Amino acid sequence: MIIQLEKNISSTAQDRLEEVLAEIQYKPNYIQTQYQKYIVAIGKEEFDIRQIGGLEGVQDIHQVSDNYKLVSKKWKVEDTVIDLGDGVKIGGGHFQIMSGPCSIEGEAQIEETVAHLVKNNVKIMRGGVYKPRSSPYSFRGLGLEGLQLFYKICSARGIKIITEVMQVEQIEAMLDYVDVFQVGARNAQNFNLLDALGRVDKPVMLKRGISGTIDELLYAAEYVFSNGNERIMLCERGIRSFEKAYRNTLDLNAIPILKHKTHLPVVVDPSHGIGIRRFVAPMALAGVMSGADALIVETHACPEKAFSDGQQTLNFQEAAVLYEQIRSTRTLQEGFNR
Amino acid sequence: MIIQLEKNISSTAQDRLEEVLAEIQYKPNYIQTQYQKYIVAIGKEEFDIRQIGGLEGVQDIHQVSDNYKLVSKKWKVEDTVIDLGDGVKIGGGHFQIMSGPCSIEGEAQIEETVAHLVKNNVKIMRGGVYKPRSSPYSFRGLGLEGLQLFYKICSARGIKIITEVMQVEQIEAMLDYVDVFQVGARNAQNFNLLDALGRVDKPVMLKRGISGTIDELLYAAEYVFSNGNERIMLCERGIRSFEKAYRNTLDLNAIPILKHKTHLPVVVDPSHGIGIRRFVAPMALAGVMSGADALIVETHACPEKAFSDGQQTLNFQEAAVLYEQIRSTRTLQEGFNR
Amino acid sequence: MIIQLEKNISSTAQDRLEEVLAEIQYKPNYIQTQYQKYIVAIGKEEFDIRQIGGLEGVQDIHQVSDNYKLVSKKWKVEDTVIDLGDGVKIGGGHFQIMSGPCSIEGEAQIEETVAHLVKNNVKIMRGGVYKPRSSPYSFRGLGLEGLQLFYKICSARGIKIITEVMQVEQIEAMLDYVDVFQVGARNAQNFNLLDALGRVDKPVMLKRGISGTIDELLYAAEYVFSNGNERIMLCERGIRSFEKAYRNTLDLNAIPILKHKTHLPVVVDPSHGIGIRRFVAPMALAGVMSGADALIVETHACPEKAFSDGQQTLNFQEAAVLYEQIRSTRTLQEGFNR
Amino acid sequence: MIIQLEKNISSTAQDRLEEVLAEIQYKPNYIQTQYQKYIVAIGKEEFDIRQIGGLEGVQDIHQVSDNYKLVSKKWKVEDTVIDLGDGVKIGGGHFQIMSGPCSIEGEAQIEETVAHLVKNNVKIMRGGVYKPRSSPYSFRGLGLEGLQLFYKICSARGIKIITEVMQVEQIEAMLDYVDVFQVGARNAQNFNLLDALGRVDKPVMLKRGISGTIDELLYAAEYVFSNGNERIMLCERGIRSFEKAYRNTLDLNAIPILKHKTHLPVVVDPSHGIGIRRFVAPMALAGVMSGADALIVETHACPEKAFSDGQQTLNFQEAAVLYEQIRSTRTLQEGFNR
Repeated sequence: MIIQLEKNISSTAQDRLEEVLAEIQYKPNYIQTQYQKYIVAIGKEEFDIRQIGGLEGVQDIHQVSDNYKLVSKKWKVEDTVIDLGDGVKIGGGHFQIMSGPCSIEGEAQIEETVAHLVKNNVKIMRGGVYKPRSSPYSFRGLGLEGLQLFYKICSARGIKIITEVMQVEQIEAMLDYVDVFQVGARNAQNFNLLDALGRVDKPVMLKRGISGTIDELLYAAEYVFSNGNERIMLCERGIRSFEKAYRNTLDLNAIPILKHKTHLPVVVDPSHGIGIRRFVAPMALAGVMSGADALIVETHACPEKAFSDGQQTLNFQEAAVLYEQIRSTRTLQEGFNR
Repeated sequence: MIIQLEKNISSTAQDRLEEVLAEIQYKPNYIQTQYQKYIVAIGKEEFDIRQIGGLEGVQDIHQVSDNYKLVSKKWKVEDTVIDLGDGVKIGGGHFQIMSGPCSIEGEAQIEETVAHLVKNNVKIMRGGVYKPRSSPYSFRGLGLEGLQLFYKICSARGIKIITEVMQVEQIEAMLDYVDVFQVGARNAQNFNLLDALGRVDKPVMLKRGISGTIDELLYAAEYVFSNGNERIMLCERGIRSFEKAYRNTLDLNAIPILKHKTHLPVVVDPSHGIGIRRFVAPMALAGVMSGADALIVETHACPEKAFSDGQQTLNFQEAAVLYEQIRSTRTLQEGFNR
Repeated sequence: MIIQLEKNISSTAQDRLEEVLAEIQYKPNYIQTQYQKYIVAIGKEEFDIRQIGGLEGVQDIHQVSDNYKLVSKKWKVEDTVIDLGDGVKIGGGHFQIMSGPCSIEGEAQIEETVAHLVKNNVKIMRGGVYKPRSSPYSFRGLGLEGLQLFYKICSARGIKIITEVMQVEQIEAMLDYVDVFQVGARNAQNFNLLDALGRVDKPVMLKRGISGTIDELLYAAEYVFSNGNERIMLCERGIRSFEKAYRNTLDLNAIPILKHKTHLPVVVDPSHGIGIRRFVAPMALAGVMSGADALIVETHACPEKAFSDGQQTLNFQEAAVLYEQIRSTRTLQEGFNR
Repeated sequence: MIIQLEKNISSTAQDRLEEVLAEIQYKPNYIQTQYQKYIVAIGKEEFDIRQIGGLEGVQDIHQVSDNYKLVSKKWKVEDTVIDLGDGVKIGGGHFQIMSGPCSIEGEAQIEETVAHLVKNNVKIMRGGVYKPRSSPYSFRGLGLEGLQLFYKICSARGIKIITEVMQVEQIEAMLDYVDVFQVGARNAQNFNLLDALGRVDKPVMLKRGISGTIDELLYAAEYVFSNGNERIMLCERGIRSFEKAYRNTLDLNAIPILKHKTHLPVVVDPSHGIGIRRFVAPMALAGVMSGADALIVETHACPEKAFSDGQQTLNFQEAAVLYEQIRSTRTLQEGFNR
């Protein structure tokens, strides 16, 4: 059960509410986000919802049968819109392309990518400065300095930034240089990191775990939301299967299901998803048709020379063609849903 | 190595060819299809291809590095077109919708489905008369009599038929009442059935195994082709994964990969693929954008009363809307590839 | 519901029984095996079991909540023993090793394998004469002639034979030369083959499908049983997973679960299961400890020269050591369950 | 390439070594563990190993073809023994049982578990104080206070402690109250946590990821080792598959493969692995036969009342029987390898 509280609920009213919950044996979890106050109350007994709905200080009350609560569409029917400022919005009918390299490599690379994005009217740049790598001996990213440079160049040109955060300690230092925090597939159940990202007021994009279920992804979002941050996007990036013909199994089935279960925007990453350059475009377009609110595409001036993931990265010419196809596909898809 | 032989190759020329292959230690497999004579020669030695290319009776010769040979795009660059007659073609730019119930249930059901298809300009009806069922106590289909009725009604209205064949013994009796034989996921590696379907001159659609790899699907097609039948389509219908939020994991990644590896047409089955009615449409449209040559959709006048698979079946109103969306999506997608 | 009928139930009694079933809306399936007459009645209504239990001609009645019925341990608590004659028994406390090559290659190979088995007191020889192969160009086995030779040599020395049957048409010709029919993983849901094997009085070993669930394996057994053959064994042979460090994922979890769910004997195939020679022994011993009633091991005088699967095959010296370890492990394991 | 350095290598010798590596274009990673100094040098060129082997300050040099290096058996053939003090050792022939509840619940529970362990001669107690939970609303453990209590009671009775650490910030506070740090499956690729655990001198047990490959597990260990901590154990705890008949697919195939690839001890967790109480014993015994160096078993005085994972937890009577079976199985298994 989700109880939406009035902002200025009196302590007397709150005590009374707590008493009633205790009577029906519901355990309250107090939640204060950037927008609202909630109680998520967990219990098993059946009770008359009006008992609580009528109490002082209670704005609204919703019974949510899902195990995750705040991220469920069962109480919040309207789609969440993530507003990055300057008119860059995702969700609720707003569609975005996020594009850029796997790893930030240096000033020149950022500059040429930004030029490419501006030219092609793409508003969000992706790029990693902290890179999770299977081997400890691989390149692990340029770190905070790289991020500051990345942010400086992008913000000067009106481009928003999405980049991966790997641990709690990085959040504070990164906060001023990030428009969207990305949580990678390997940290999909790093609950301390999710808790901590719930305590900042910056959008977070959660990637589905390497073999994460759709429910686990929604639970991860519930961690962030219940810690205080409502600005969450979910990202399908390919799951692990038996098939060896591609890098991951981009699971587009997840898109309509997520859109049905949650009010949060859903992003598709076809580059990591299929992991082979030649096949990124059809999967990107299929992703749009499946109902995604945004796409995240890996691009590089010269994929062959990229520090990481070159084999799945488009060059700027290929990317420019794809952006146009994505947009026409989106236009058609939007028409279907009217 | 694939050697295309001249139709009227002399026995002397054939002997000579065999000698040369023996010299370079290649084992010849003689193949006579409805269209052409081939030798698929398997060996390891390197040799000068002109040694063979110049021989009498040899039309052309191709070295194919894939393990499957005849179905590979490495020797036959042009897409195969499956022609069902009356202008109904699949592949090589021709796109079709196949629609109908999971199980054929009786005359009335066939009649109303055909009326729906004719009205909506759909040319191929799907419907099972032999049903593979997990439990021996479930409905197993109307059998041959059902098929004859099915065919009679459809052919009278110009509708082509696709239906599943489950065993070798059924082929002969079914032959006159079928436009496309379907091999189900559970028989994806029933090699005797594949051999036998290679010996008839009717198109065959092979479904990918429940956890079949893309290579296994291509090998299955190689069985049919190497037994003499070049008229083959491949169908992605969902693989088995850990995810429980849907019935199967429709693997659209397979589409661009198959289109890259083989000259055969590729079909997507979103109904079995995701297995939940509400999500069939987005997956169907995503399937078109991923590059499919045909879609196979489950429809029924009243899905709630269907003998099988009702939960993933569209009613006629829903289906009619989807056909139109499929066609506009296909038109857009075709434009991209020009 | 399973109704065990008296052998000489009168037609009047049978009619009466059918009437009662019709009244409670249960659909009867008549089953006549080599041992007994049953009705498996499928329905949903609740009813008083004594209504039927007290009828003439009814020996016993069992309500089975599983979806599979006849193979369930819920009605037949005692383990089924498969008796191959000459004191060779499997299940219900009887343990066997089955050993031999993947493919039967010729007389000399059979002779030396039999000598090895006799010397090591192994009673059952495995060996394929019909080989399911991914590629149509691979060796597909010696066929019926090979089988006749195989049987002749083995039966002369008191060795029982297990070999794979791939299609319905092969059954009749094979019948006199086989002690156990094996159904391979690729035919795990070839329902026509299962039906047909239900109509012969020869033991059948069913391999779990490549990604077959435990329930699907039990359903496959239900097909055989409900067609009339109670002599069934189940075999775990490795499932398909994402892991690439071995050939298949031998799923020993299946053993205690199957032993809990069914009265049928359970066999472990560690050779196909892990697929790497060096690791067969530990997985075989683990298989014994997990509760298997039999093991099936690939051996060859010279694995390097085997026609197929050499990489997972033990030579005779390795196998002889393993047999002894298997037996001591089994002795210890048996003691635990007393 | 791994270069073992002499402890007191001079800076001149180190400079010279670096020069030579630069010449052959190998990138050196300096590693100082609690025992030794190493350079892991990564490069592609072939070179004469004696060039480096003969240099001053170089104790030994090993070329390791695996992608992970320090954890590979290719350079360190002898098994690593983890010594927890007081004669409690794991690996290299030393076998241990770790037993205890999923969650530490309070003093009484610890006391009664310790009494049970002492009585049954089990030397290591498992128990979680930081619990990773899918839902943010579930019980998340007693935290540091719980740990201090846990450690106090155990150390007074000579019982060693293994418990999960979830984030970098917890390490320092936990350090004095832990004998073995456990990294859970969800943190299997939390590289910052792995880095940090490499910088302490306490044994670490790494659980395989929920769908982690064997190679990823070895890479995780390489992170810990290359940061300075050689005291690592690996734990198989079940992978995610399509099968729904059990909680996870305990993958015993991993045991012989890990024992072949690495010198580190390998632990099996049958409780999480199969996740159903009734089946824990056969999987535990199978785990021993597959070659494990230790088992980790969930026990509770009253599993029905356990705060978490009760359905897979043994009561003390069941556990006592299992310990004895484990020990006799281990004795038999050890005999095989002599």
